[in-house]
Amino acid sequence: MKLYNSAMPAPNPRRVRIFAAEKGIDLPLEEVALAKREHKSDAFREKNSLGQTPVLELDDGTPISESVSICRYLEEIHPEKPLFGRSALERAQVDMWLRRVEFALMAPVGNFWRHAHPYTAKVVKQFNEFGESNREGVAAAFRWFDRELEGKNFILGDYFSIADITALCTVDFAAFAGLEMPDGTPHLHAWHARVSSRPGAAA
Amino acid sequence: MKLYNSAMPAPNPRRVRIFAAEKGIDLPLEEVALAKREHKSDAFREKNSLGQTPVLELDDGTPISESVSICRYLEEIHPEKPLFGRSALERAQVDMWLRRVEFALMAPVGNFWRHAHPYTAKVVKQFNEFGESNREGVAAAFRWFDRELEGKNFILGDYFSIADITALCTVDFAAFAGLEMPDGTPHLHAWHARVSSRPGAAA
Repeated sequence: MKLYNSAMPAPNPRRVRIFAAEKGIDLPLEEVALAKREHKSDAFREKNSLGQTPVLELDDGTPISESVSICRYLEEIHPEKPLFGRSALERAQVDMWLRRVEFALMAPVGNFWRHAHPYTAKVVKQFNEFGESNREGVAAAFRWFDRELEGKNFILGDYFSIADITALCTVDFAAFAGLEMPDGTPHLHAWHARVSSRPGAAA
Repeated sequence: MKLYNSAMPAPNPRRVRIFAAEKGIDLPLEEVALAKREHKSDAFREKNSLGQTPVLELDDGTPISESVSICRYLEEIHPEKPLFGRSALERAQVDMWLRRVEFALMAPVGNFWRHAHPYTAKVVKQFNEFGESNREGVAAAFRWFDRELEGKNFILGDYFSIADITALCTVDFAAFAGLEMPDGTPHLHAWHARVSSRPGAAA
């Protein structure tokens, strides 16, 4: 088993690295250089026809793509220290929060990165006015997230989950793209400091 | 247990209705009228702070939002006839395909609907040139999906899963929005006819 990985700042491979580190899984990495467009090569597209990292390759060669799907597989084969929830209801709530973070926060961050950042302007056609409009959407999502975090250590309360990992990778990638957490979001800032201080965050 | 539902053409509540029908779960529905903006009311936002349908309300009042998270909960409490996969690897592959359909196909359909359709122009600020650009993205995604379906009855081969349900709801919503499956996609057309003919598709 090995992970086709891309280094920081790519947020999606980082999700898997943190997930594996939190569970104590040693995952061999093979770098796929996004700057060299290696993820768009024919050879890599045989592993993932969408040309995206990360991809987990099993020992028999079977590829699994999508960061969250890779984490689900790791959770199945290493169930100890569950990060997708510990009961039917909690698993639904972790999944709900994971999706909320992806659709409400990661999506506008991605739109900004894709359509308004100078880096991506070099490789794709941008709609800059649309891209810039996501600044406000991201700020509004940060404020919503801040309200939801009030009184909680982690997104699910006292239980650290893959929803926190996804949110951490999203917030850090947003900052890399130039979208910092806004002022007046104390719960968000406290949560971010809390999850960033975990050893796994450095994975 | 009841489902806060919104009628066709809303694709996300439909995903849950089909999922429940396929598993033989009788799910009482309470309509939330999107045209009347009932999903954005303070009362509904107490169930889902993002103001979106569907929401599953448990008998103790606990709300679960996000269509896929609701389906995961239903799968947990009614495990018979699994639609999320039957083994660790298959569950990862179902999840991978579910996410591929959402990110590669549903996302550009949503962008078109949000930014280029006359209906949404009445309620939100649009970036029309960006919205229109998604026509080609959707067509490209349909062609990718067609290639992936070659030789398969369902997305996972002979196994019908929530990935098929999500893709069906996406393709039908795309058509509603004016984005029909392009010519030259025979595997996609055959798959669509196959999944549309299942009784659950009418739910």
